[in-house]
Amino acid sequence: MKEISKEERELIENEVKVLGDEIRALKADKADPNIVKEKLAKMLEKKALLGENGKGKESSKFVLKTPKGTRDYNPQAMSIREKVLNLVTDIFKIHGAETIDTPVFELRDILMGKYGEEGGKLVFDLADQGGELCSLRYDLTVPFARYLAQNKQTNIKRYQIAKVYRRDQPYMTKGRYREFYQCDFDIAGQYDSMIPESECIKIIDDVLKKLDIGTYEIRINHRLFLEGIFEICGAPENEFKNVCSSIDKLDKQPWEEIKEELVKTKFINEDVVDKLEKYVRLREQNPSFTKNDLLEWFEKNEECSKNEKIKTAINEMKLMFEYNECFGVSPSAVFEPSLARGLDYYTGVIYEAIILENSFPTIAVKCDDEEGNARIGSVAAGGRYDKLVGMFLNAASGEKKAKSKNDVPCVGVSFGIERLFTLMEMKYMALKTPMRTNETQVFIATAQKGLLKERMRICKDLWENNIKAEMIYKNNPKLLTQLQYCEDKFIPYAVIVGQREIEQGVVKVRNVVTREENDVKFEQLPDTLKKLLI
Amino acid sequence: MKEISKEERELIENEVKVLGDEIRALKADKADPNIVKEKLAKMLEKKALLGENGKGKESSKFVLKTPKGTRDYNPQAMSIREKVLNLVTDIFKIHGAETIDTPVFELRDILMGKYGEEGGKLVFDLADQGGELCSLRYDLTVPFARYLAQNKQTNIKRYQIAKVYRRDQPYMTKGRYREFYQCDFDIAGQYDSMIPESECIKIIDDVLKKLDIGTYEIRINHRLFLEGIFEICGAPENEFKNVCSSIDKLDKQPWEEIKEELVKTKFINEDVVDKLEKYVRLREQNPSFTKNDLLEWFEKNEECSKNEKIKTAINEMKLMFEYNECFGVSPSAVFEPSLARGLDYYTGVIYEAIILENSFPTIAVKCDDEEGNARIGSVAAGGRYDKLVGMFLNAASGEKKAKSKNDVPCVGVSFGIERLFTLMEMKYMALKTPMRTNETQVFIATAQKGLLKERMRICKDLWENNIKAEMIYKNNPKLLTQLQYCEDKFIPYAVIVGQREIEQGVVKVRNVVTREENDVKFEQLPDTLKKLLI
Repeated sequence: MKEISKEERELIENEVKVLGDEIRALKADKADPNIVKEKLAKMLEKKALLGENGKGKESSKFVLKTPKGTRDYNPQAMSIREKVLNLVTDIFKIHGAETIDTPVFELRDILMGKYGEEGGKLVFDLADQGGELCSLRYDLTVPFARYLAQNKQTNIKRYQIAKVYRRDQPYMTKGRYREFYQCDFDIAGQYDSMIPESECIKIIDDVLKKLDIGTYEIRINHRLFLEGIFEICGAPENEFKNVCSSIDKLDKQPWEEIKEELVKTKFINEDVVDKLEKYVRLREQNPSFTKNDLLEWFEKNEECSKNEKIKTAINEMKLMFEYNECFGVSPSAVFEPSLARGLDYYTGVIYEAIILENSFPTIAVKCDDEEGNARIGSVAAGGRYDKLVGMFLNAASGEKKAKSKNDVPCVGVSFGIERLFTLMEMKYMALKTPMRTNETQVFIATAQKGLLKERMRICKDLWENNIKAEMIYKNNPKLLTQLQYCEDKFIPYAVIVGQREIEQGVVKVRNVVTREENDVKFEQLPDTLKKLLI
Repeated sequence: MKEISKEERELIENEVKVLGDEIRALKADKADPNIVKEKLAKMLEKKALLGENGKGKESSKFVLKTPKGTRDYNPQAMSIREKVLNLVTDIFKIHGAETIDTPVFELRDILMGKYGEEGGKLVFDLADQGGELCSLRYDLTVPFARYLAQNKQTNIKRYQIAKVYRRDQPYMTKGRYREFYQCDFDIAGQYDSMIPESECIKIIDDVLKKLDIGTYEIRINHRLFLEGIFEICGAPENEFKNVCSSIDKLDKQPWEEIKEELVKTKFINEDVVDKLEKYVRLREQNPSFTKNDLLEWFEKNEECSKNEKIKTAINEMKLMFEYNECFGVSPSAVFEPSLARGLDYYTGVIYEAIILENSFPTIAVKCDDEEGNARIGSVAAGGRYDKLVGMFLNAASGEKKAKSKNDVPCVGVSFGIERLFTLMEMKYMALKTPMRTNETQVFIATAQKGLLKERMRICKDLWENNIKAEMIYKNNPKLLTQLQYCEDKFIPYAVIVGQREIEQGVVKVRNVVTREENDVKFEQLPDTLKKLLI
């Protein structure tokens, strides 16, 4: 542990005190437990710097916490997670997808240079303990491309649900962690134009519709469209990514700020920026325009209609929207000329889904967030990336120049499943939905001493009949404790075993909610319960 | 990359050549693909040392592979994995378990000192990139104990299925990897003697029975029994773990070798070793003894019956076997006086399950294994650990001495699920079971050009009815290609769309196996398929 000076120590001690006061106040106010947890995590971090924990004066080697930016999932959280993942997986399966899994870490060379300058800094490395240099995966797309290249596989429709790692600044209340789940669906293969793209949009639409967490918008754009706009505005080609990353913020920041950034920080000619504005703000400035109005506008615009890239992009998007119609995609899919996305590897259509308004009353969330608002950000994003697999094949075979024969066209979508978990948690909290954390159907209880083995034998009979059953691991439990457990866990039935009943060859079956009780013969118990449990 | 000398280079080049020849020979012999894969992985590793890959002369920065000791799961492997995990999870749920999840890495201090000297060396560390020092989890038990201590939780019945990491020498053909799944079930809480233990044994028995991969044995022993035997043999207390790790090999090595190791390498007095032999080999030397015979032998033995530790251990095991009977545990559960297990934290009953004989014809496996055999080793193991949670609580509160008020009694079992996957893969291969990698029920095909949008609309209708459907992403596909795909993927039905049929408002529904075809009206298609798919 690093030594800290006396002044630093006092400063940190004071911060711990302030945090402690805040936590007490939040608890008194019955604030959102997630906020309390976050404050607590911060306090523990500070305490760790002091090398102490808890009330004791004695210094301790470690603090009981998870690493920064990570979390445990308790049974309640897991229960929500399972619901969300099952819903998403079912939709992937309805579309005929297979699944694969790849290791949590990859050879470092595989990840290098795939995530731009910013992304590269956020990769978690494994320590060099002899042997290969490895890093934790940053997303599931690059490992998927490595998998295809390594196995010389040229087509697959697959999903993958797994954790990825980014050394980013965490904002737990917004669902932003350093370890988080991603949930990807991708179609690889040489197929006809826009058909796989529209299936990806369909899947985003279906997932968000079924989750029922709020109104949403699937914003769609095309890399070639942005490149074309760049050309006709006379923007410097080598500043493409740099400018795009500013424009991409248009849904969060006013244009004036973006313009200032472009002119003053990124040194883009003001005339160019003004020209760009006209195109990228077209939707924002014409809220009544439908996506077809927008597309037509660009088709009819003199400058745009002459640019080959824009023409290709507009034609592809038009075709995709036609296909979307056939697939029954909702009107939430829109054309957004300012959407740019950060990643380097996209080559065609790109898209992003955001939640506009929650379907449930939101608890006010105070965020320590530089943006100063509680927006949950994008919940799904993706696009076409035709060159990534080829990059691996070229590099592995030592090609100096990219060979397009190595390309495996891909298009996919990645769900920000962690944010979807957070929204679902908020929904359940808001609606006060009772949460089951196990699936027990029957609890075997007793009011008397010495009936342990009888309870065990009944459990055995029920388990053999695939009835989910449990009992308390005590010789002489109190009946009240047992019934209380049933109510706490929302277990629908209790079987009550007593001496009198055993002599008569029966047990009592109790409906936990109505408290109605009936005697049932031993040998009829499994069948009776099965009927009750349908 | 490290520079290598010319001599080293030649040596490695030769090894690569030899491996290449071996692989060709194995392929010609149609050997087990897993062995070929392993050889291939070795060759690629060697090639990586040379800084080259593939046939090209040009040097390349990276090799297309997963890190040493890790693997991808392709859709076939995932399909088996899903079957095994669903079966195991269902059994956990039948017993009323909840589930939790913890991060893939923990603060390094949490893991330190929990896995003995050997285990400690095998922990994967994250690089120090500023901030906390972290390591990848080595098992799920220590994170579980940390979770309980951190949340001050004193009772839970939970399972957790997740990947763990060990920098061990991998033997892929035996299912031993550096990244592998563990599948743990644990009961924490202050309960009456041996009740939770027998539920753990019941779960092992149920899982192995339902997986149906072969005959098995659940070997049971008790830490106090081993400690008692140590006492009466006059073995040095501080050599307990050291001696136990030798004795534990009795199922793999003859006693003579173990004795030699104990006397010559570990400097245990020969008289002591001879005394130990009498007790730990009792079952081996009396194969006709039932578990009750063995327990009785120790109860009646003069020396043993006077030792308090042995008495406690024997009484507890007797009680557990009685409870096992009530739970209907099979006779595969046995008392094995030589079972010792490696880990430090066990305090009571310990157990381990091994596969004795596969239920399917085994393909001969040649292993580069120092043990020289293809034994799959233990597939489940566990025991009681009453002090681990308390250790965390004591340390975190800065206690110098262990306080037993902090103890949270725990007992659990961890399934070697990776080995179970390997066994299941072998079983499927041996039985030539057809493997479905997706769940598609209906394929929408066409024999004619220009019917893309009609196929899309039919897909939409079926998806809306929760029927798993797909189509090819081509405008003008060949009918044969489409039907071939159905057969390859074991898709039961194809819907064939044609111009004539569209005019009549019908489609053809084809049974892929029988090739029988029937016209079905558009509006009746979902209902007709639902009936066929029951």
